[in-house]
Amino acid sequence: MSVSKLKVGCAGLGRMGKRHALNFLERTPRAELVAASSPDDAELEWAKAHLAPYGVKLYKNYDDMLKHEGLQAVVVASATAVHADQAIKAINADKDVLCEKPLSTSPEISQTVVDAAAKKPHLKVMCGFSRRFDTSYRDAYNKMQTGFIGSPSVMRSQTCDKLDPTGFFVAYAQFSGGIFVDCSIHDIDLALWFFGQDSKVKSVSAVGITAVEPDLRKHNDRDNAIGLVEFYNGKIAYFYASRMMAAGQEDTTEIIGTKGKLAVNTQPSLNHVHIYDNSGIRREIPQHYYDRFEYAFVTESNEFTACCLDNKELPLKLEAAVQAVRIGAALQEALITGKKIFFDEAGNRSEQAKL
Amino acid sequence: MSVSKLKVGCAGLGRMGKRHALNFLERTPRAELVAASSPDDAELEWAKAHLAPYGVKLYKNYDDMLKHEGLQAVVVASATAVHADQAIKAINADKDVLCEKPLSTSPEISQTVVDAAAKKPHLKVMCGFSRRFDTSYRDAYNKMQTGFIGSPSVMRSQTCDKLDPTGFFVAYAQFSGGIFVDCSIHDIDLALWFFGQDSKVKSVSAVGITAVEPDLRKHNDRDNAIGLVEFYNGKIAYFYASRMMAAGQEDTTEIIGTKGKLAVNTQPSLNHVHIYDNSGIRREIPQHYYDRFEYAFVTESNEFTACCLDNKELPLKLEAAVQAVRIGAALQEALITGKKIFFDEAGNRSEQAKL
Amino acid sequence: MSVSKLKVGCAGLGRMGKRHALNFLERTPRAELVAASSPDDAELEWAKAHLAPYGVKLYKNYDDMLKHEGLQAVVVASATAVHADQAIKAINADKDVLCEKPLSTSPEISQTVVDAAAKKPHLKVMCGFSRRFDTSYRDAYNKMQTGFIGSPSVMRSQTCDKLDPTGFFVAYAQFSGGIFVDCSIHDIDLALWFFGQDSKVKSVSAVGITAVEPDLRKHNDRDNAIGLVEFYNGKIAYFYASRMMAAGQEDTTEIIGTKGKLAVNTQPSLNHVHIYDNSGIRREIPQHYYDRFEYAFVTESNEFTACCLDNKELPLKLEAAVQAVRIGAALQEALITGKKIFFDEAGNRSEQAKL
Amino acid sequence: MSVSKLKVGCAGLGRMGKRHALNFLERTPRAELVAASSPDDAELEWAKAHLAPYGVKLYKNYDDMLKHEGLQAVVVASATAVHADQAIKAINADKDVLCEKPLSTSPEISQTVVDAAAKKPHLKVMCGFSRRFDTSYRDAYNKMQTGFIGSPSVMRSQTCDKLDPTGFFVAYAQFSGGIFVDCSIHDIDLALWFFGQDSKVKSVSAVGITAVEPDLRKHNDRDNAIGLVEFYNGKIAYFYASRMMAAGQEDTTEIIGTKGKLAVNTQPSLNHVHIYDNSGIRREIPQHYYDRFEYAFVTESNEFTACCLDNKELPLKLEAAVQAVRIGAALQEALITGKKIFFDEAGNRSEQAKL
Repeated sequence: MSVSKLKVGCAGLGRMGKRHALNFLERTPRAELVAASSPDDAELEWAKAHLAPYGVKLYKNYDDMLKHEGLQAVVVASATAVHADQAIKAINADKDVLCEKPLSTSPEISQTVVDAAAKKPHLKVMCGFSRRFDTSYRDAYNKMQTGFIGSPSVMRSQTCDKLDPTGFFVAYAQFSGGIFVDCSIHDIDLALWFFGQDSKVKSVSAVGITAVEPDLRKHNDRDNAIGLVEFYNGKIAYFYASRMMAAGQEDTTEIIGTKGKLAVNTQPSLNHVHIYDNSGIRREIPQHYYDRFEYAFVTESNEFTACCLDNKELPLKLEAAVQAVRIGAALQEALITGKKIFFDEAGNRSEQAKL
Repeated sequence: MSVSKLKVGCAGLGRMGKRHALNFLERTPRAELVAASSPDDAELEWAKAHLAPYGVKLYKNYDDMLKHEGLQAVVVASATAVHADQAIKAINADKDVLCEKPLSTSPEISQTVVDAAAKKPHLKVMCGFSRRFDTSYRDAYNKMQTGFIGSPSVMRSQTCDKLDPTGFFVAYAQFSGGIFVDCSIHDIDLALWFFGQDSKVKSVSAVGITAVEPDLRKHNDRDNAIGLVEFYNGKIAYFYASRMMAAGQEDTTEIIGTKGKLAVNTQPSLNHVHIYDNSGIRREIPQHYYDRFEYAFVTESNEFTACCLDNKELPLKLEAAVQAVRIGAALQEALITGKKIFFDEAGNRSEQAKL
Repeated sequence: MSVSKLKVGCAGLGRMGKRHALNFLERTPRAELVAASSPDDAELEWAKAHLAPYGVKLYKNYDDMLKHEGLQAVVVASATAVHADQAIKAINADKDVLCEKPLSTSPEISQTVVDAAAKKPHLKVMCGFSRRFDTSYRDAYNKMQTGFIGSPSVMRSQTCDKLDPTGFFVAYAQFSGGIFVDCSIHDIDLALWFFGQDSKVKSVSAVGITAVEPDLRKHNDRDNAIGLVEFYNGKIAYFYASRMMAAGQEDTTEIIGTKGKLAVNTQPSLNHVHIYDNSGIRREIPQHYYDRFEYAFVTESNEFTACCLDNKELPLKLEAAVQAVRIGAALQEALITGKKIFFDEAGNRSEQAKL
Repeated sequence: MSVSKLKVGCAGLGRMGKRHALNFLERTPRAELVAASSPDDAELEWAKAHLAPYGVKLYKNYDDMLKHEGLQAVVVASATAVHADQAIKAINADKDVLCEKPLSTSPEISQTVVDAAAKKPHLKVMCGFSRRFDTSYRDAYNKMQTGFIGSPSVMRSQTCDKLDPTGFFVAYAQFSGGIFVDCSIHDIDLALWFFGQDSKVKSVSAVGITAVEPDLRKHNDRDNAIGLVEFYNGKIAYFYASRMMAAGQEDTTEIIGTKGKLAVNTQPSLNHVHIYDNSGIRREIPQHYYDRFEYAFVTESNEFTACCLDNKELPLKLEAAVQAVRIGAALQEALITGKKIFFDEAGNRSEQAKL
């Protein structure tokens, strides 16, 4: 008796690509990583050492990888700029797709992936919002679903990176879509998840500063930004994104309901160790988002695989990724123009606040 | 050898008045509570039992109390509506004044108190922002002053009350000035304290909902509101105020600097007890702001007394109270109109965002 | 109408004496500190500056103070060696007595105070175990009393001082009775409080080391010691005392019952501040026991005063202080001899474990 | 190019056997689970569904499994009573061995495994003390190794299980060796790890009660026990083991050094969620040890595999397992007899405390 595994190819072998490739190779029992592609020679060298010995075929060209014999699914973990293009090509080649977030920094381009997927309803196409797979967020969501906090009404959520003194984020800002699209997209997705995917935005406003990286202004970005989002269903959310945390990654969320509150990671910790010295009692915290969400990514690859093999419904809809980008882009516009932006219930811009 | 004490009168014997009266009677060694006034018979009854036996003279009429022989200072702890009037009368009668916050819900009326005090520079006139006297806030402030967190850049602060199912807050909203003036005023004051009292507002925006008390809308108020304040010195603050916390009072502040962060009360606790049962590990938290800030009020009465007796500088300027009301009122307007409000550097309204 | 206050004299003006004197002077509204005594000139100088201006009469001789006109109660806060003697003299002079712990490092001498008090049942005589007046311990005790944790069965309690590199504790060990009598006495008292004052000891055993102060061995003492106490009512307690904490004072207690657990101070904190920097997230903790228990001492002076004035039952019996010293001295003996010590149900030494 | 994997067989498919089998099957990339054995039909049924489809050969007889073609290593995860026998057979069959703890409840039988392994120095034979593979314990150990806490001097460690009202532990006590051998063995192993594997015991003493399961006395066991261990190197450790925690599994360790302290799990938590309701703020905690140590077991299987394949030194010596059982058995004897037990430096019983 034999057990069939999902044959997966990984597009892109950069920071996240390597992680996805290894997760599918080693930590996704029902998947078999059969192929990987990267246009980058250094990345391919890494793959020769770490993937090829386990039978993974390497491709310099993504299109060639798509033709790999028996390939069933593709993980798109390349540069954001090619996410949508590669995802659409994979869809057209009849592959299931797990695409790193965001589909695109543009809501319109993001939508083209949804449109392509709509034509192939038998395929599993998912944009990987890692927090949806995190045990803590899921625990909070499940508790909310029981009615425990009454009606969820206010969300506070932040994605705050450790200060990287190398200035990496300045260069990165050219392509990231801005701090609300790059960071807060996770928080926005959480708001849509917890408040209901059909929550319609009424207004967005935002402020931001460049406290440590004035050069971010060249790319219409900020290193600290706060955004307010008002929904037509009587719910409100506020988001804080930052690039200058001293202690490490601080991704925190509170869901405040009419009868209670659920807080995720308001007391960050790396592990179970407390350190007592003459400065007091302290704990260390994760330094980067992957330290915090490593197992969420493993769960993601396993659940995606199970959905493909067993033809089960994906845990989140592809449309969610477009909604989140749309709100993130509006917040970024509000941040840069200083204007509050209003929407009517159909989602179109409106001149005035609807009271 | 004898030690002279500050002779104090307390105006108003409601919830806060009683506390102030007892604090000056029993917990302020250098002060002597000599008089108290209230127009309310029930309050006077209470005072007959609790204050009179210790030699405190009671007055039904505030103006009469002001003429009490030897009276040196007045604590104004009456209804907000008469704060300014009583404070000005006391100033004019040459008394030192400790006035409960806010001076008034109107910035203009608040300013009249400042104007009156300006004519009597020898008097000590202070508006009591209790958090300025709290050991935790002071510890955070002192640590910030050492440069420990670099340049303070972002403040998150919230004043969140326990849900009071009696609907008390609906009636109260008629006079409170709204949730930003009533609750967030403390957070606004903290922002001015930590960012510098001369911080000038560039814009304010706000959103709010009535999740548990729809009737608040009658009084142009909300039960949950979030406000954004942008300052001309490149700092930003965001405030959350709520009337619907399930666990108790949650007054939390984070001051985020370019090199570190200071958090006050992100892990609220009533005392040092942890309770382990089959629901997990839990701690109780203060139910009301006085549970949290009781000792801050005691410190306030003691420090005010010392400043009067020793002719020392007060720990906060009276002007601070006007600034805070001005920002609170603008946030409340932004909340109700849905509009983002802009200011020029002189503090006047402006039509457009200054980029 | 006048209110009568308890006229109190303070014996001893050393570290704790000063605190008690000031607490009765300034923070005990129903008491009036009328006298204080110390054989030490430096202490009397301090008193001239801080007590005399408020009408406190100073005495170099304790016996003279006892004759102070109208004196009603005495706080014995002198050196431990004279606690019992001074307490007995005060009792014989018909004064209410609040005596610092321990009555004596000797159980026999401690008992003489109880015997003296027994002859004057109209007097209030109390040994001040500060934790009995701490809000957290009281909260835990009250929760236990409701049956919340079922039957309390196991206690872990520790009294751990911050490392004092001056070697103070070596000199102090000559008179302290040893670490179990000096420090663990509080934990032992807690065990008797929570398990029932009539709990009878079945066995004690102990181990200890001198990790930082080898010279303590000269005085038959240790800088770290752990003791086990077994009671005849099927309950057990274990105590840890240390002189070498790096972060500060760590006085922690857990009461483990058949249905739940109550923990006091398992997460010590000085205040509500958390500090985020590149070493992680940290909080400071109290450095000395008075930082931790300051308000317990204030409550103690107020409750003692109320019991005297209103002829109410004291919150703890004087016998409790003898019981605690007896167990502490047995633990200290077990520590030094290395032997496990057994008792029969009458409290007499026994050669063998009773199984 | 091909990558060779370690061919592993799993002996025993009970609660822990299933976990080990799946860990080697799915979460140990460099291992290949090729065989599994169990005398129990129900366990074999489970294996038919969960292991056989992936090519795992099933055996009813352990000896037959040992002859499986190409088998390189055996995981002994059967009943404790057969651990030693199966381990020795595997050693004699020239297999690497990972044996669940304890090797045996008897120190003498445990030693026979060490003796067998000593004759086959080329084999990797390890007893799996899971905490040695836990990231928090490793972090604490590494911090200690840097000298951060000075000289480690005192250890407090506890293994406390959630109350299991089914009475399971009464039946289990027949075979477990008692609470100190079954539970505290982990804490004892930690003491030897942190204090040095060559730490020699000077004395042990213990007390215990049956607070919830009086029937444990039939099997010479207790449901709550506290043990003291004194070492000749001037270090002391105290252990608490319990079967009656209300909130869940509470395995906590503190390592107290002359300059600082490291605490592991003094604030247990299941995940990053805090729950706010009208009872306060609470977090849930792991319910069973596997919830807490799941990833430690995965690390264990991966590291054992790497040591076998790469001929690297195992992270802990087999002798450690005998030392721990020896101390555990002495504590259990002290618990039951009520006697303090002394050892000379050679490890032999001694009548008197050596001072």
